[in-house]
Amino acid sequence: MGQNAVVMAVDIGGTTISAGIVGADGAVHAPRQVPTYARGKGEAVLENIVGALEGLRGEAPAGALVVGVGIGAPGNVDAAAGRIGEDIQNIPELKGLALGPLVAGRLGLPVVVDNDVNALALGEMAFGAARGARNFILICIGTGVGGGIVLNGRIVRGASGYGGEVGHMSVEPDGRPCFCGSRGCLKAYLSGPDLAAQACEALAAAPAARFLVLAGGDAAAIRAEHLFQAAREGDTAAQAIVDRAARILGTALGNLINGLNPELILLGGGVMGAADLLLEPARAWARRYSFASAFAAAKIGLASLDKHSGIKGAAALFFIERGGEVAMR
Amino acid sequence: MGQNAVVMAVDIGGTTISAGIVGADGAVHAPRQVPTYARGKGEAVLENIVGALEGLRGEAPAGALVVGVGIGAPGNVDAAAGRIGEDIQNIPELKGLALGPLVAGRLGLPVVVDNDVNALALGEMAFGAARGARNFILICIGTGVGGGIVLNGRIVRGASGYGGEVGHMSVEPDGRPCFCGSRGCLKAYLSGPDLAAQACEALAAAPAARFLVLAGGDAAAIRAEHLFQAAREGDTAAQAIVDRAARILGTALGNLINGLNPELILLGGGVMGAADLLLEPARAWARRYSFASAFAAAKIGLASLDKHSGIKGAAALFFIERGGEVAMR
Repeated sequence: MGQNAVVMAVDIGGTTISAGIVGADGAVHAPRQVPTYARGKGEAVLENIVGALEGLRGEAPAGALVVGVGIGAPGNVDAAAGRIGEDIQNIPELKGLALGPLVAGRLGLPVVVDNDVNALALGEMAFGAARGARNFILICIGTGVGGGIVLNGRIVRGASGYGGEVGHMSVEPDGRPCFCGSRGCLKAYLSGPDLAAQACEALAAAPAARFLVLAGGDAAAIRAEHLFQAAREGDTAAQAIVDRAARILGTALGNLINGLNPELILLGGGVMGAADLLLEPARAWARRYSFASAFAAAKIGLASLDKHSGIKGAAALFFIERGGEVAMR
Repeated sequence: MGQNAVVMAVDIGGTTISAGIVGADGAVHAPRQVPTYARGKGEAVLENIVGALEGLRGEAPAGALVVGVGIGAPGNVDAAAGRIGEDIQNIPELKGLALGPLVAGRLGLPVVVDNDVNALALGEMAFGAARGARNFILICIGTGVGGGIVLNGRIVRGASGYGGEVGHMSVEPDGRPCFCGSRGCLKAYLSGPDLAAQACEALAAAPAARFLVLAGGDAAAIRAEHLFQAAREGDTAAQAIVDRAARILGTALGNLINGLNPELILLGGGVMGAADLLLEPARAWARRYSFASAFAAAKIGLASLDKHSGIKGAAALFFIERGGEVAMR
């Protein structure tokens, strides 16, 4: 692909659509954000996505050629068909939509669509902390817990676009229930809302817990940040929740290490803002729950995500999946 | 590869080395077995392997061309280097041995070496129940619990040859300890010896358990088969152990379904002789521990293993990994 090939990239979130033009070197041009529902609900969401892309048309740097469109979207995605799956929780109007073909038809450009965390994983491979890695796993821990798995240099999509959903692997069969139908998933202990929920539940036994004070005395206002701050200040109720979350994370990492033997695991997302509390304990549990040599082969570190990671990932989707075809034109 | 290309195949086990010539259609010629230690311990094991292969030299069918050697071996294997790994439990003299280059040098033929269960998985893909599958998992439950994972049509080896070791994924973090260092692994509940151990332990609370009678009254003689037979006859202590094993298996299947979204999971090995007791309960637990659509995409069935599966798998290793090169000669 020529040095001046660029991709129009969109990252679709539940509240915000981010868009921009991304070069093969990862440079971001004309980044912008619009509210997902800026034009209203229903079909207006599709118009909003197309509008964001059309707004980028004149913004390519001088001499650059727009070769295609990359789109990251929540939930499971049928990347081969460019179709949004059935398990998209936060933007129901996109459910089952053939987004790729629709956008391609409107813009007259080839389009690649995939799950947003798969896009982030490919972004890490193309432009970030996973450059050169052939076997790595990205886990994004925020409002939900998403994952992207690259093995033999290729993203794992599986039979119907669920590949990489490591946030919904159970390590406590009798543990906390999860919306996915399972129990004891990573997500049920590690996501921001689940951390806050565990803090609320702990108030029964620890009514004077520090995180309640930090939340202004309002249990409904407790967020993961309050829990983490309380743990840093030595609050034992907070520490117990954080320790359990780190153990769950580490056990899951051990399982991934034994099952898939990655050379690299990257952890990112808002909850990893508490890497000071989570990373070392999770590493220690992962060591305990894996073969010594498989553990030794696996670097566990932080993702290199920044505010443009969503669109860089969406662009990486196109560059990695279609780069070869474009280069041959 | 020509129709008359054949591979000399060896499956190395802790007690027996199986060898034979295998055609591209999976037909097995001149199968034979020798005890692993027939020529003694130490370097004699390598001589025994080479001897088994040399004995096959004149056995290729008329008109067939021997294009290479495929070897399946226990433990983790560095397939790129043809080197046996550090975690081979049962044949210590092979630990760290560059078996591929050594055999290639002795026989003057290209050699592919991989983990025996990876070989079985590729055998299922080339000749068995996984023909046409691009994303599937084989789990072999016997003396140990091994696995082979094929994603995007390629076997998952990982960074250092542990890829596919699904038998050592933990689903009970406080569960039974395992030799791998972890706790609550599949292996710790499902392997034949672990099933027998759980039966022994249950005698404390159920001294009249039926499996003790079936074992001739000798606790040390209890085998998994006695446990399964007792469960079939309605023994509650036996049923509790079998039910728990099925739940552990099903939870692990659910995790694999959510994480990797395979189209097919094949279960094989001696313990699956009790498929009548294990398969449906494991399926039901897997359904409970996975996304409904990901579960719906995953067929869970029995492997098509037979007495020649080891050598067919070893041959598939060569045909799949090197077939392209051979065809171009």
